Amino acid sequence: MEWRAAVRVTLKPGVLDPQGKAVQGALHAQGFRTVSEVRVGKYIQLALTAESRREAEEAVERMCRALLANPVLEQFAIRVWPAEQGEEETP
Amino acid sequence: MEWRAAVRVTLKPGVLDPQGKAVQGALHAQGFRTVSEVRVGKYIQLALTAESRREAEEAVERMCRALLANPVLEQFAIRVWPAEQGEEETP
Repeated sequence: MEWRAAVRVTLKPGVLDPQGKAVQGALHAQGFRTVSEVRVGKYIQLALTAESRREAEEAVERMCRALLANPVLEQFAIRVWPAEQGEEETP
Repeated sequence: MEWRAAVRVTLKPGVLDPQGKAVQGALHAQGFRTVSEVRVGKYIQLALTAESRREAEEAVERMCRALLANPVLEQFAIRVWPAEQGEEETP
């Protein structure tokens, strides 16, 4: 069965985010002065085959630990849904 | 009022994603051979003040068009929620 997965990889709380700080500075320079914090992470979309949703979720979790995220600095969250449902709508 | 926002920035369909292809190749090399597609985008978390949810959403949309996304190559999706609800749970 075909599955889609979305993985959100974000820095753990307390880990300094220089890229986020740079974006925040650029937003302030453009007049968006009400922004008090910016953090930049990754959003990874996958297509994969697996026998069940659980098997797909476990495979994606192993991918995160092996390659997609840095477990020292980053945390991740996974969502899996059947491919026939198409793309997800909300971030 | 304090708001949190999450912005998912992804390449438009049809735009080549060399970073995604590289990740897919690395996953295959690690034995994850059921993965047929990988696309890598950005996941941006913001904290901001605004009078209403609608005002916050409109501000974040302006930020996307001005700076956070490249409107030629990328699409974006925005979610805004009250800061007192804390972090969101799912990707």
